Amino acid sequence: MSTSGTPTILSTLPPIFTALHDAKKKSKMTFADIAAKMDRDEWYVAGIFYGQAKPDEADVTKLSAALNLQQQYLDDAFGPDFFPHRGLGEFPPQDPVLYRLYEVLVVYGYPLKHMIHEKFGDGIMSAIDFEGHVEKVKGKQNEDRVKITLNGKFLPYRRW
Amino acid sequence: MSTSGTPTILSTLPPIFTALHDAKKKSKMTFADIAAKMDRDEWYVAGIFYGQAKPDEADVTKLSAALNLQQQYLDDAFGPDFFPHRGLGEFPPQDPVLYRLYEVLVVYGYPLKHMIHEKFGDGIMSAIDFEGHVEKVKGKQNEDRVKITLNGKFLPYRRW
Amino acid sequence: MSTSGTPTILSTLPPIFTALHDAKKKSKMTFADIAAKMDRDEWYVAGIFYGQAKPDEADVTKLSAALNLQQQYLDDAFGPDFFPHRGLGEFPPQDPVLYRLYEVLVVYGYPLKHMIHEKFGDGIMSAIDFEGHVEKVKGKQNEDRVKITLNGKFLPYRRW
Amino acid sequence: MSTSGTPTILSTLPPIFTALHDAKKKSKMTFADIAAKMDRDEWYVAGIFYGQAKPDEADVTKLSAALNLQQQYLDDAFGPDFFPHRGLGEFPPQDPVLYRLYEVLVVYGYPLKHMIHEKFGDGIMSAIDFEGHVEKVKGKQNEDRVKITLNGKFLPYRRW
Amino acid sequence: MSTSGTPTILSTLPPIFTALHDAKKKSKMTFADIAAKMDRDEWYVAGIFYGQAKPDEADVTKLSAALNLQQQYLDDAFGPDFFPHRGLGEFPPQDPVLYRLYEVLVVYGYPLKHMIHEKFGDGIMSAIDFEGHVEKVKGKQNEDRVKITLNGKFLPYRRW
Amino acid sequence: MSTSGTPTILSTLPPIFTALHDAKKKSKMTFADIAAKMDRDEWYVAGIFYGQAKPDEADVTKLSAALNLQQQYLDDAFGPDFFPHRGLGEFPPQDPVLYRLYEVLVVYGYPLKHMIHEKFGDGIMSAIDFEGHVEKVKGKQNEDRVKITLNGKFLPYRRW
Amino acid sequence: MSTSGTPTILSTLPPIFTALHDAKKKSKMTFADIAAKMDRDEWYVAGIFYGQAKPDEADVTKLSAALNLQQQYLDDAFGPDFFPHRGLGEFPPQDPVLYRLYEVLVVYGYPLKHMIHEKFGDGIMSAIDFEGHVEKVKGKQNEDRVKITLNGKFLPYRRW
Amino acid sequence: MSTSGTPTILSTLPPIFTALHDAKKKSKMTFADIAAKMDRDEWYVAGIFYGQAKPDEADVTKLSAALNLQQQYLDDAFGPDFFPHRGLGEFPPQDPVLYRLYEVLVVYGYPLKHMIHEKFGDGIMSAIDFEGHVEKVKGKQNEDRVKITLNGKFLPYRRW
Amino acid sequence: MSTSGTPTILSTLPPIFTALHDAKKKSKMTFADIAAKMDRDEWYVAGIFYGQAKPDEADVTKLSAALNLQQQYLDDAFGPDFFPHRGLGEFPPQDPVLYRLYEVLVVYGYPLKHMIHEKFGDGIMSAIDFEGHVEKVKGKQNEDRVKITLNGKFLPYRRW
Amino acid sequence: MSTSGTPTILSTLPPIFTALHDAKKKSKMTFADIAAKMDRDEWYVAGIFYGQAKPDEADVTKLSAALNLQQQYLDDAFGPDFFPHRGLGEFPPQDPVLYRLYEVLVVYGYPLKHMIHEKFGDGIMSAIDFEGHVEKVKGKQNEDRVKITLNGKFLPYRRW
Repeated sequence: MSTSGTPTILSTLPPIFTALHDAKKKSKMTFADIAAKMDRDEWYVAGIFYGQAKPDEADVTKLSAALNLQQQYLDDAFGPDFFPHRGLGEFPPQDPVLYRLYEVLVVYGYPLKHMIHEKFGDGIMSAIDFEGHVEKVKGKQNEDRVKITLNGKFLPYRRW
Repeated sequence: MSTSGTPTILSTLPPIFTALHDAKKKSKMTFADIAAKMDRDEWYVAGIFYGQAKPDEADVTKLSAALNLQQQYLDDAFGPDFFPHRGLGEFPPQDPVLYRLYEVLVVYGYPLKHMIHEKFGDGIMSAIDFEGHVEKVKGKQNEDRVKITLNGKFLPYRRW
Repeated sequence: MSTSGTPTILSTLPPIFTALHDAKKKSKMTFADIAAKMDRDEWYVAGIFYGQAKPDEADVTKLSAALNLQQQYLDDAFGPDFFPHRGLGEFPPQDPVLYRLYEVLVVYGYPLKHMIHEKFGDGIMSAIDFEGHVEKVKGKQNEDRVKITLNGKFLPYRRW
Repeated sequence: MSTSGTPTILSTLPPIFTALHDAKKKSKMTFADIAAKMDRDEWYVAGIFYGQAKPDEADVTKLSAALNLQQQYLDDAFGPDFFPHRGLGEFPPQDPVLYRLYEVLVVYGYPLKHMIHEKFGDGIMSAIDFEGHVEKVKGKQNEDRVKITLNGKFLPYRRW
Repeated sequence: MSTSGTPTILSTLPPIFTALHDAKKKSKMTFADIAAKMDRDEWYVAGIFYGQAKPDEADVTKLSAALNLQQQYLDDAFGPDFFPHRGLGEFPPQDPVLYRLYEVLVVYGYPLKHMIHEKFGDGIMSAIDFEGHVEKVKGKQNEDRVKITLNGKFLPYRRW
Repeated sequence: MSTSGTPTILSTLPPIFTALHDAKKKSKMTFADIAAKMDRDEWYVAGIFYGQAKPDEADVTKLSAALNLQQQYLDDAFGPDFFPHRGLGEFPPQDPVLYRLYEVLVVYGYPLKHMIHEKFGDGIMSAIDFEGHVEKVKGKQNEDRVKITLNGKFLPYRRW
Repeated sequence: MSTSGTPTILSTLPPIFTALHDAKKKSKMTFADIAAKMDRDEWYVAGIFYGQAKPDEADVTKLSAALNLQQQYLDDAFGPDFFPHRGLGEFPPQDPVLYRLYEVLVVYGYPLKHMIHEKFGDGIMSAIDFEGHVEKVKGKQNEDRVKITLNGKFLPYRRW
Repeated sequence: MSTSGTPTILSTLPPIFTALHDAKKKSKMTFADIAAKMDRDEWYVAGIFYGQAKPDEADVTKLSAALNLQQQYLDDAFGPDFFPHRGLGEFPPQDPVLYRLYEVLVVYGYPLKHMIHEKFGDGIMSAIDFEGHVEKVKGKQNEDRVKITLNGKFLPYRRW
Repeated sequence: MSTSGTPTILSTLPPIFTALHDAKKKSKMTFADIAAKMDRDEWYVAGIFYGQAKPDEADVTKLSAALNLQQQYLDDAFGPDFFPHRGLGEFPPQDPVLYRLYEVLVVYGYPLKHMIHEKFGDGIMSAIDFEGHVEKVKGKQNEDRVKITLNGKFLPYRRW
Repeated sequence: MSTSGTPTILSTLPPIFTALHDAKKKSKMTFADIAAKMDRDEWYVAGIFYGQAKPDEADVTKLSAALNLQQQYLDDAFGPDFFPHRGLGEFPPQDPVLYRLYEVLVVYGYPLKHMIHEKFGDGIMSAIDFEGHVEKVKGKQNEDRVKITLNGKFLPYRRW
C-alpha cells in the first residue's frame, strides 16, 4: 500500500521507485526541474520514475546528484541486470486523465492509420525510436490547453 | 464485406462512408488535398470519412464540391438527424499501426498523468474541445518520422 | 482487510481514507453534516472520503476542524503531490445498489444520447465540470424515493 | 446495416424500431414534441423508440396519430405478445457521450452507495419504479449544462 | 488464508464473519438451529454469516445470545455504519454446487422471462423485496431432492 | 432479425422455434394453456419453445394438436436426430428480468451452498433430474409476488 | 508462496493441503501407494490432496496412518464443517499438461456430445456420480501412452 | 441458420459438413454404423463430420460409399488443399453435456497433472498422437454409465 | 461462408483473397512454387495471400503471371489505396497448430526477453523490419522437424 | 515484491528462482556463460531460471558448481517432487519485447499454419519435443538483428 500522497500504482513496482518519488517530493522539484539538471526531457525522466525507461550511467549520476540520493544505491538498482518491465496498470483505464488519451485512439485510430498510410506508405510509427513532449499552451480564448507531441521514426514494412 | 482496396472496418458503418471512400479513391485526392479545399485539417476530414466527426453545413457543401457528389445525398446523410456513434474497432487493436499508438499509453500513461498534474493541477485534457495534427518530419539522421500532436483544452475538476 | 463496519473497498486505497472514515464514525456525523461545516455539497465531500476528489486548502482546514484531525496530517496527505487516481471497484459491479445505477445506463443509454443530441447538438455532458446531488423525496403514494441529479457542462465537439 | 442518418444500434433491434425512427425523421418532431402529444415524458418516449419501454394501448393510439403510422401496424408490434428485451450495446461503451455517464458511476459509485445508505438505510434505488428527465439549463457563466434527473423508489431490503 | 474447515471465500470479507463461523462451529448448531433462536429463516441467517444481509438490532441481540458472543462486539460490527457490500466470488463459478444453480438460468432464463411476462405483464421479480427458502424433500422414488423457493415482489415497469 | 413481437433471441435458434411462437401467438394461448393440453408443466413447455427441452413423441403429437401445426413438420424437427443445444444468450444478462434471477445467485450463492451442505452433505442439486415451477401468489400486503420453485435431485459425490 | 518443490497452486488452498503434500514428500509414497493403503483409487486420493474431494471418516483414519499425521489434526480439518470448494486455477490453463486435456474438448466436444446423444438419448454424463482412472500403457510401437478413463452415470433429462 | 434437427454449430463450418449430416440423417446410420463401414472408430468419424479430423483418401472412398455421396464431391472437399481449422464453439461452453466434461478438468486438472508426473515424469499426454473412445457400460446398480477413454502418447520434455 | 477446401478465416477478409486462394488451388502450386516465380520468400508470399503483407508493383506483376490472373484486377486490389489491416483471428487461438506457436511464448517469453537484454541491451526485436522462414529439416532420429526462423532488427530504446 | 534489479515476474514463482537470479547476478555470468559450463543451450538454461524447465541430475550438479550454490539446496528444489508449472505472466503481454513476439503470430499465424500444412500435411510443430536458439546476427546494412530459431518435431494427427 502506498503512503499518503504517493501514486498507488507504485505499489506494483520495486521499492526503488517509491524511493525516487519520496526523494522528489522532499526536493520539491518537478520532473521539468529534474530534467533540466539531467539534460533530458521531462517525459523521459518521468518514464524513469515509473520504471518505464532505463537511465544510462550518466543519467544515474545526475539523478543521484539532483535528488541527493546515494549513487551506489542507484547504480545497483539501474545496473546492467536491470531491464524495465514496461506496461503499467490496466486497459481500458478507469482514471479519467488516462481514459481521455485512450478515447482519442478509440475515436481517431482508423483515421490516423489512414493518414499515416497516405503520407508514408505501408509501415508504422515506432514506439521505441520514439520521443514525446508535453506542453502547457494557450488557446484562442486564452484558455489553458494540454499539447502532447508524439514523435516516432517511421518504420516501413520489409519485404523479403 | 468491403470491396477490394477499401478498409474493412467500413463494413461496420452505414453505406454513406463507403461511398465517400469510393469517391475519394476516384478523385485520387489525399485527405490533405480534400482538407485544403474545405479549409479544415486533414485529421478532422479523415474523422468525417470514418464517421467519427460530424461536418457542419458549410463542410458538407465543400465536401460535395470536392468529391463531385450530389449535395442532396450528403445533406440527407449528415443532416440534423445524424449524430456520430463514435468508437471504431476493438481494443487492444491487433493491427500494428494502431497498436503502437496504444503501446505509448500502456508504457507512458502514468508519467503523462503525473506531468499533466504538475503543470495544470487536478483535471484532464479534453478529448472533445480537441484538435490533432499529423506531420511527416525529418529526424537528425534525416530519417522520416511521424509527428502526431494532440491538443486539448485543460478542464479542471469542479468543486461544489 | 478493512475493520468491521468500514467499507471493504477502502482496502484498495491509501490509509488516509480509512483514517477519514474512522474519524467520521467517531464523530457520528453524516456526509451532509460534514458538508454543512465545509460549505460544500455532501456528494463532493463523499468523493473526498473515497479518494475521488481533491480538496483544496480551505477544504482541508475545514475538514480538519470538523473531524478533529491534525491539520498537518491532512495537509501532507492532500498536498500538492496528491492527485486522485479516480475509478473504484470493478464494472459491472456485483453490489445491487451500484448495479441499479449501471442498469439505468444499460437500458436508457441510447435514448439519453439521442435526447442530448436533440437538445444540444453534437457533444457531451462533461464529467469534469460536473456536479451531482442526492435527495430523499416523497412520491405520489408518499413512498420514499431516491432523486439523483447529474449536472455537467455541455461540451460541443470542436471542428478544426 | 442502418440507412444514412439512422442510429446504427437499431440494426440490432426488430424492424419496427427503424420504422418509428424513419417516421419521426419525416415528421421533423423531436422526442419532446412527440411526448407532448402523448402526455408522457420525452425520456419515456425515447425509451419506446429504442425498444426499452413498452407503450400501453393509449400510448400506441397517440403514437400512431402523432407519427401518422397505421394503428394496426403498431398494435401488432406492441401487442400483448411484445415484451422488451432491455439492454442495448456493449459496456463499457466506446461512444464518448455514453462513456461520460458511465464514468460518473466509475468515479462516484461508492460515494453514492454510502450517501444512499446514510439517508435511507439498507436498500436500493429502483430502476423499475423509476423515472428520469433531461433538461437544458444555464450555469453561472451562462454556459449550457445537461441536467439529468434519476428518480427511483427506495426499496429496503426485506428481512425474513 | 482461511483456517482448516472454514470456507475460503471468507478471506475476502472483514474478520467479523470468520468470527461468526468459528462461533457457529464451536456451537455445533446449523443455520436452521440459529434461525429458530432468532425467529428468522435459515436462508436469511446464512446471508448474515456471509455478509450479504444486515441484521437489525433485535437480530444482533439474539445472534449474540445464540452464539455466546459479546453483544458489544456485534453491535460495533453491525451498527449504523455497517452496510453490506453484496456479491461474493466470481461468475461463472467453478464450484459445481454454485454452477448448477447458474446453469438453470443459462438454460431456462428466457422461458422464465416469457412466463413472468404472461402472468404479470412488463416487469420484474424483485431481488430486494425478496425471500427464499431451502428444503429437503422426497421425490417419487423416495430420493432426496433439493427444493429451493425464490419469492420476490412483482415490480411493474413505471410509465411516466 | 425477428419479426415484430417475437423475442429477438429466437434469431439465434433454428426456424422451427419461430414457427412455434408464431403458432402460439395466433392461438392466443399461454404456455399454461398449452401445458394443460399436454399434461405438462408450463415451464417445461416454455423450455420446448426456446429449444431448451426435447419433447418426446407423445408431447409432439399433443403439441401438434394444440397449435394446429402439421405433425409431420414437428416430427421432423424433433425426431431422433434432434438434440437441444442448451444455453441461451450471454451472461451476465443485460435484461433486468434475467439479471434479477442472476443477482439472487451473486448475493446468496455461498449461503445456498452452505445450507445444502448442512442438509444433505457433500453433493449438488441436479439441473438435469430437475423440475421448476412459476406461480403468481399474493403477499401479506396483497401485493403480487413471483414464486419460483427449483426442485432437483440431490446427487452425492461418489468416492472411489 | 509455496516452498521449493511444492506445487504453487497449493498457496490458494488452506494450509492443511500443504501439510498433506509435505507429509507425502517425506513418506516418499506416490498417490498410488497411499491409495493402496486406503482401498481407494489414486485419482480420488489425489483429489483429496488438492482439496477437491472430501474423505469420509474411514478415509481420514487410513490417511492419518499412511502419512503418520495426527488423526485429531485431520479430523478437525475434514470434519462435518468442511466442504470442498471445488475448482482450481484459471481456464484456459497456461500449463501444457493441463492445456492438452482442455484441447481434446475444444476439438472433440461436439462430436462427443453427438455420440452421447446417439448412444443414450437426451442427457449428460454426470461429473458427480463419477470416477476416473489414469494408467500407463504401451502402444503398438511400444511407446508409453497416458490412458485416462472418465466414467460417469448417464443422467437423462427429466420431463415434467 | 441450420435446418431443423441439424446441430446449430454447423452454421460456423463450410457447407460440406451440413451435407454430410444430412446424408447421415437420410441413411439412418449412427456414427458407429458408418465407422464399421470405414474400419475406423466412431469418435474419429464423428470428428470428420464436425470438421475436426481430415480423412485420408481411403476414408473418403468409404465415406462416399457409406453415405451414397458422389466421390468427386468429397474428393474436392477433402483434397490436399483441405486442412481442418480445429476448435469448435466457445469455452466455457453453456451446453450442459459439454460443460460436465469441462467441469471434470476444472475440478481434477491439478490432481491429473500430478499423477501424470508421478507415473511418467516431466512431459504431457499428446492431443495429436491421440485416440479416444466412447462406450455405454453398466454400473453396479445396473445404471447406464458413459465411459470415455482418452489415450495419448506420452511426450517427455526435451532438454537441449 | 467459405467454400469447401478454402480456409474459413478468409471469410473475414475482402473477396480478393479468396480469389487468390482459388487461383492457387487451380494452379496446384505451393507458396514455395509461387515464391520462386516472384523472387520472394514463401512466408512473405503466404502473408500476401492472407492480407497481411502488401505486395509492391513488381510483386503484383509477377503474381498476376504466376497465377494467370488479370493484372488490372490485382492492380486495383493492391493499388496505392490498399493498406493491410493486419491481425487475423482470435487469441489465444483454438487451433492446435496456432496454439503450439503461442505456447512457446507463454512458456519461454520471459527467458527470451532476458536473453535479448543480455545480448543487446534495452530494446526490442522489430516485427516490422522483420523476416521469417519455415523449413522442413531432419532431426537426430531422422524425424521430420519444423524449423521456424524469426529475424528482426534490434531496435534500442531511444533516450531523449 | 522483487528487490531492485530482479525481474518482477519472479515474485510469482517459489523463492528458489530468486536465489538462482541473485547467484547469477553475483557471478556476473550470462546465461550463455552458464550454459557453456553445463553443456546446454542458453535458452534451456534461461528456462530453468524462470521455472519453465526441469533440470536433470547432471544439470543440477553443474548448476551448483557454476553458481557456487550448495548442491543439497538445489537437489531438494529440483528433486523428483518438483514439476514445473509452465506458463508465465498474462497474454497479451504489455511489455513491448514480449508483445513483438506475439505480434508476429497475430499477423502471420494463418500463413504459418498453411505453410506447415503444405510441407508436412495435417499435424503440428511440437512445443514439447522442441528446442530454440537466440542469436545476435548482422544484417545487410550491418545492423544488429535478433535471430530466433524455433525447432520442434512434426507430429502428424493420428487416425484411428
